[in-house]
Amino acid sequence: MKVIAVYPGTFDPITNGHLDIISRGVRLFDDIILAILRNPDKEPLFPLEERMEILSSVVARLPNVRVESFDGLLIDYARSRGARVIVRGLRALSDFEYEYQMALMNQRLGPDIDTFFMMPSEAYSYVSSRLVKEVARLGGDVTGLVPPEVEARLKRRLAVMGRA
Amino acid sequence: MKVIAVYPGTFDPITNGHLDIISRGVRLFDDIILAILRNPDKEPLFPLEERMEILSSVVARLPNVRVESFDGLLIDYARSRGARVIVRGLRALSDFEYEYQMALMNQRLGPDIDTFFMMPSEAYSYVSSRLVKEVARLGGDVTGLVPPEVEARLKRRLAVMGRA
Amino acid sequence: MKVIAVYPGTFDPITNGHLDIISRGVRLFDDIILAILRNPDKEPLFPLEERMEILSSVVARLPNVRVESFDGLLIDYARSRGARVIVRGLRALSDFEYEYQMALMNQRLGPDIDTFFMMPSEAYSYVSSRLVKEVARLGGDVTGLVPPEVEARLKRRLAVMGRA
Amino acid sequence: MKVIAVYPGTFDPITNGHLDIISRGVRLFDDIILAILRNPDKEPLFPLEERMEILSSVVARLPNVRVESFDGLLIDYARSRGARVIVRGLRALSDFEYEYQMALMNQRLGPDIDTFFMMPSEAYSYVSSRLVKEVARLGGDVTGLVPPEVEARLKRRLAVMGRA
Amino acid sequence: MKVIAVYPGTFDPITNGHLDIISRGVRLFDDIILAILRNPDKEPLFPLEERMEILSSVVARLPNVRVESFDGLLIDYARSRGARVIVRGLRALSDFEYEYQMALMNQRLGPDIDTFFMMPSEAYSYVSSRLVKEVARLGGDVTGLVPPEVEARLKRRLAVMGRA
Amino acid sequence: MKVIAVYPGTFDPITNGHLDIISRGVRLFDDIILAILRNPDKEPLFPLEERMEILSSVVARLPNVRVESFDGLLIDYARSRGARVIVRGLRALSDFEYEYQMALMNQRLGPDIDTFFMMPSEAYSYVSSRLVKEVARLGGDVTGLVPPEVEARLKRRLAVMGRA
Repeated sequence: MKVIAVYPGTFDPITNGHLDIISRGVRLFDDIILAILRNPDKEPLFPLEERMEILSSVVARLPNVRVESFDGLLIDYARSRGARVIVRGLRALSDFEYEYQMALMNQRLGPDIDTFFMMPSEAYSYVSSRLVKEVARLGGDVTGLVPPEVEARLKRRLAVMGRA
Repeated sequence: MKVIAVYPGTFDPITNGHLDIISRGVRLFDDIILAILRNPDKEPLFPLEERMEILSSVVARLPNVRVESFDGLLIDYARSRGARVIVRGLRALSDFEYEYQMALMNQRLGPDIDTFFMMPSEAYSYVSSRLVKEVARLGGDVTGLVPPEVEARLKRRLAVMGRA
Repeated sequence: MKVIAVYPGTFDPITNGHLDIISRGVRLFDDIILAILRNPDKEPLFPLEERMEILSSVVARLPNVRVESFDGLLIDYARSRGARVIVRGLRALSDFEYEYQMALMNQRLGPDIDTFFMMPSEAYSYVSSRLVKEVARLGGDVTGLVPPEVEARLKRRLAVMGRA
Repeated sequence: MKVIAVYPGTFDPITNGHLDIISRGVRLFDDIILAILRNPDKEPLFPLEERMEILSSVVARLPNVRVESFDGLLIDYARSRGARVIVRGLRALSDFEYEYQMALMNQRLGPDIDTFFMMPSEAYSYVSSRLVKEVARLGGDVTGLVPPEVEARLKRRLAVMGRA
Repeated sequence: MKVIAVYPGTFDPITNGHLDIISRGVRLFDDIILAILRNPDKEPLFPLEERMEILSSVVARLPNVRVESFDGLLIDYARSRGARVIVRGLRALSDFEYEYQMALMNQRLGPDIDTFFMMPSEAYSYVSSRLVKEVARLGGDVTGLVPPEVEARLKRRLAVMGRA
Repeated sequence: MKVIAVYPGTFDPITNGHLDIISRGVRLFDDIILAILRNPDKEPLFPLEERMEILSSVVARLPNVRVESFDGLLIDYARSRGARVIVRGLRALSDFEYEYQMALMNQRLGPDIDTFFMMPSEAYSYVSSRLVKEVARLGGDVTGLVPPEVEARLKRRLAVMGRA
């Protein structure tokens, strides 16, 4: 059977932890849509357009992955794409609580769509977009935590903002 | 692509929480193998043969689910069946820690096979085989927590053991 | 003995999880005071007056429940009302940590007043005011998660704010 | 209204953490029944009779507390006593998970009876019967962790067992 | 061997929980540097200069403790001081998750520097700078939770801000 | 100042996670004593003598590490050795709870001795003696999870027991 999966997130920026999840997802689902949440309330480091550009470039070699953005309810968006699966990474306890709450709510809003959790490799168990940005901002080396392209963009962006 | 998933467990006995995971899994995977761990060290309430019988009967109407038993490493067993996915239910924090540890170990032992977690409906968030047995043993009503067939068998088995 | 209990919260808005706690509290305490914290630092969705109005209407049929607002220390407020109990719902792990810290601090500030925790029915284990607002804001259906009156008010309020 | 509460446990032996919960409970409930679970599967340090004796002696000065033992379902026992409340102490995260599961199961088995949780003073946050026994067995001083009577009995009992 | 330890924090203000950690650290390390993070994004209650003044005064009697401030990466700062140890207090579960993530990241950024965790006495298990400020702001008594000097300064500062 | 640390454990068998903690401890403490708990109630895979032999061999190249065994209270043993520090690894949430309880109890039993926690590298975050034994027993490869010597001994021992 053909299964389309949505992997939603902010991806500000994408990390190697995200990539780890994606690279395993492509082995199991026919199509994966990386879906960036358009959230007018949050101030991302990278504007939506740049995040879409980065994602597209990073997953270019994966034929069954595409990049989109969405607003509104995730479950409505997933349904509109014919997706039957939402994929999420589970990294830590604090993730667990929040993800559990969201998964139960999404089960209620869309019982036809299932949330699947994957655990990133232990090498990325402490890697989050937030921490990567914090370390980069303070001049720390994030090689190996994000794709090389993201590393370069982080430097440029933080320089523009007068931080690095 | 064709994806075979293994859903391993003790299933002593199968609960409606397990069934909830299975009924969602059948929508996403081409085949699901319910794999009962043969563990000589544990004393189950139901012997292996009876658990296989119960499971087979409970999932009889699901064409792409079959029941097997295994010993040895789960990852070796999964590979021998051509499975690319291990499915696990995630119910609570204490589950999380253990499952996290096992998932990372299995990633190391078999990087080609992925562990996927699903969260059962909140209606089953507190239901475990252990708790069901404890309640049944003390004469409590477990209707709605296990398939009707299991309920009947629990009564019979506990009567045999002089407990109910 | 006569026991007065305070159930403090922001109630922005009240959910069926809150109601579940209240409906059990009324069986055990002679009086329950729903006490809305006046917090000038937070921007609620519903102004204090409207929250008091909603709460009063929702619990109108419960004779021994009344609605008030307070500022200052909860323990001082409780004492001023002759309350010997603070009631709190415990939903999840993240709740637990915070509630534990607050309960110990309140034990120290007012050793004569006890904090009692109740767990809402599993049907509401994932329901929080924050999540309800988020879903409503994105156009999702929150029927069954909040009292009908709150559902109607959520729609109106979000329309006024240009979000729904 | 008159409220009877059951505080169930193994009390093997009672600790000052238990006493802390009891001494707060007596301020709020008309009657508290300390209910020792008769569990034929567990090997307690103190036989049931001695635990009942200890408890009775320790709470002798509290007029509205009595000591009983029970087997079968807690919820059936509570109902048979006209109790509307089950009291439990919540000490730590691992407690939380188990207690949460039990509270939801008991809600299902007896929706007319509520489970209330209290957190012991931080002075007892690390005190459990198990840990007290372990320390006493190794010759450590448990003064202040258990009532004086229990301290004396621990020494005697462990001497009999050839451990202290 | 001579070991220098850095104990980083915001110390806004220092609590008796921090002091508990420091007083144990001085028994084990040759030098302890209390290092206040200069964080332009956060609005502290006490300005950096006052926090340095308070800390210096509070630890004046401890010959091998000194107070500094830093910005940039903690690991770079620690290295610049010849420190081989970062000391952190671990109080609760939510601390654990964050601290775990930071410790792993710091291990990667500076494998030559180790993070050591200490648990404060149970008397301070619920004491945080945030909670102390909240209680003081609402007029609650924080005696015993912070050094006397901090208590006095809290009153003055909150009076200036029109809160106490 | 000279600091002696005790690193207590069952070490049945020692893993690379333990070694990671030891190799960092030797940089900070003048002496580290690996102290194997003699616990007559537990049935280890390796007898005490073999565990002492393995540990001694594995840490032979570290001049300031020695191996001992003890029974009775850890704190009494530590004091008898002039140790001022107990070192423990913190790996996961479930560890945290137990370790927290033990650390507070040990603080009470021996306020002059401090417990220090270190987090093993993320590469070992899922590695425990128990899991290593389970995997080895089922024929799985544990290379990289334990020292080479332990790997060889595991095979031999399990062969003797008719399991591998």
